[in-house]
Amino acid sequence: MSELIIWTYDWVPEGPRGFVRDLRLRWACEEAGLAYAVRTVPFDGRETNHLSRQPFGQIPFLNDGDVEIFESGACLLHLARKSETLMPRDPAGEAQTLQWTISALNSIEMVSVAWWFLEITGEKHNGLTGWMANRLGQLENVFGEREWLAAGRFTVADLLMADVLRVPKVRAFGDRPATDAYLSRVLDRPAFKKAHADQLAHFAVADKSRAAANP
Amino acid sequence: MSELIIWTYDWVPEGPRGFVRDLRLRWACEEAGLAYAVRTVPFDGRETNHLSRQPFGQIPFLNDGDVEIFESGACLLHLARKSETLMPRDPAGEAQTLQWTISALNSIEMVSVAWWFLEITGEKHNGLTGWMANRLGQLENVFGEREWLAAGRFTVADLLMADVLRVPKVRAFGDRPATDAYLSRVLDRPAFKKAHADQLAHFAVADKSRAAANP
Repeated sequence: MSELIIWTYDWVPEGPRGFVRDLRLRWACEEAGLAYAVRTVPFDGRETNHLSRQPFGQIPFLNDGDVEIFESGACLLHLARKSETLMPRDPAGEAQTLQWTISALNSIEMVSVAWWFLEITGEKHNGLTGWMANRLGQLENVFGEREWLAAGRFTVADLLMADVLRVPKVRAFGDRPATDAYLSRVLDRPAFKKAHADQLAHFAVADKSRAAANP
Repeated sequence: MSELIIWTYDWVPEGPRGFVRDLRLRWACEEAGLAYAVRTVPFDGRETNHLSRQPFGQIPFLNDGDVEIFESGACLLHLARKSETLMPRDPAGEAQTLQWTISALNSIEMVSVAWWFLEITGEKHNGLTGWMANRLGQLENVFGEREWLAAGRFTVADLLMADVLRVPKVRAFGDRPATDAYLSRVLDRPAFKKAHADQLAHFAVADKSRAAANP
């Protein structure tokens, strides 16, 4: 079996720690019991230092033997092919998992990331707020009716949707008890806790080596 | 072989015609030579009249025999499994197609749709403009180096990326000659032209029946 390598930054500031998107891939591998290694590209100069591997200068990207793939959503779907834990194999279950994975990226995150970006850059109560309320309200209705998004059980769609929704400003947006219960359920999984702790540990070690290099 | 049914609205105003997302699915089926039918849900009352089938009140969604799937990106990946024209079968070609399909949804459209939404609702030169310039500039570099996004030939990733980029305000954003040449190349495909013409015809017929129903 070919080795999986998850690529992330060698260091990030404190703010994004626990939310850097290599966590999605770590979490998926932990759920699926897939062995993986973590390697890094430098955070300093990230805008240009790995464009041949990720044309937007971002992380994560994934090696799977000879195959290299970027975009966390694409990496998750790639990993989901390896494990029924992440995606059921029956056509209906697979279609549901796929549609909710894409929903997380293109119906929710498409609004929440842009909204959040404007919030932190100072445009509070920006023009996307109504759209946010609409989409998160529709999702609240979904969570009022079911425990998991697809196929009646945990899938990679829940992993991704929970990662999109757990961003503090997004989670604090309005009063959405069913969504909150859903998030608690998904984030209580041991695989998430391990991935989260491992990311924090990775960047804590990076702090020390960065300090040693810049005494 | 099970019948494919693409669901769209029974009518839309003139503005979005030619851009309603059922076009993505029509186009993919035309490229792949897959037979399909088009059926409709009412545009009036769309916010609530088909939530059991699409929880955000949107279209398109797709029937493939007993399987129903929503999110245009998910429908495209579902269709791509049926046709090597849309997605190569070798692992590297498949990974490239997947990563660029998700890029269109989550690295480009995540910025361009939010930016466009603020532009048309009156926040011109909004806080997303710099982010737009950055992402579209990075993509311009990619198109300067290659003819197609993945696997050295047309794939479903080009279909989706071109559909994201052809939105008039997005296409007119800045001077991006390589992107423009790419768009001309993709949109010159007979399958796009047929899908586009068929969507316009669908809504033109709808105009007449709407006029007959509301004399």
